[in-house]
Amino acid sequence: MTDASPARLTPCAALPHAGDMLSSPLETEPDLSPMERAFAEAASAAARGEVPVGAVIVDPATGAVLAAASNRTEELADPTAHAEVLAIRAACAAVGQPRLPGLDLYVTLEPCALCAAAISFARLRRVYFGAYDPKGGAVEHGPRFFSQPTCHHAPDTYGGLQERRAGALLRDFFKDRR
Amino acid sequence: MTDASPARLTPCAALPHAGDMLSSPLETEPDLSPMERAFAEAASAAARGEVPVGAVIVDPATGAVLAAASNRTEELADPTAHAEVLAIRAACAAVGQPRLPGLDLYVTLEPCALCAAAISFARLRRVYFGAYDPKGGAVEHGPRFFSQPTCHHAPDTYGGLQERRAGALLRDFFKDRR
Repeated sequence: MTDASPARLTPCAALPHAGDMLSSPLETEPDLSPMERAFAEAASAAARGEVPVGAVIVDPATGAVLAAASNRTEELADPTAHAEVLAIRAACAAVGQPRLPGLDLYVTLEPCALCAAAISFARLRRVYFGAYDPKGGAVEHGPRFFSQPTCHHAPDTYGGLQERRAGALLRDFFKDRR
Repeated sequence: MTDASPARLTPCAALPHAGDMLSSPLETEPDLSPMERAFAEAASAAARGEVPVGAVIVDPATGAVLAAASNRTEELADPTAHAEVLAIRAACAAVGQPRLPGLDLYVTLEPCALCAAAISFARLRRVYFGAYDPKGGAVEHGPRFFSQPTCHHAPDTYGGLQERRAGALLRDFFKDRR
């Protein structure tokens, strides 16, 4: 299986930071187009000099995209303006309530603690993410927030979508700025 | 020592969820007026039907209050609109940058994972908080975010300020709504 077609995904809990070692199939394949949209958002962040992370919130029942956002911490002078938080805030504004049950989030990088908590509070159904983030991730690393007894809603999580592409996007960004 | 005058505080790391067992003094006593302001913010949240949590950001060098906020998750339909996050966003807007080095945050409840991460990303110097939160706290409970290897800035933390009053505020709110 190539990195570009991660048609078979495994919940994070079953993945020992596996990356390409995707073995246990989901019953249905995820729609990859939201991930493409998330990559486009990440690229737009890089073009603005922001750490390139993009996120998209989708209604899996209809395929409708409720929100798409990228990191804007520098532009907005807001340390909470991560892609996931901005997408959650936009989707909540769209539906007029602070919870998003049944909706899915696609993001190019493993969510950090801020974003993992926001995802939990928003009651999102599933999280699909790209690159694993050993330095700042909070799903498969560090606090592993969704596994904490203080986490009262844990989405299904699927990591490693187009992992090489997602990791290269970040590496290229930081390489260019050194 | 009475609950109303917690003049001696101990860093959280030294406190086994101690609450009133405050023994090792700080060299200087904290200014309690920001905590009073945080309690006033929390009360205003309760009056609006929001979970009563209030937060204040102060410059310890001048005593200036840069931001004061309370929980508005329902009003704003935003699961990230916690008191600490709103205060951090407002203070960052006031100084025009996404980091608040040297500033202190006072909050009536132990910060959750969302707020602990926001505090870390904002580079706040100290966090003084009221009630401990075994169900959702992320400083002394659950992920203990500031102790994680993925946490790249940990503020000094002081818990249990006017703990009984802070806890009663929350208990009364939820009792009235049952």
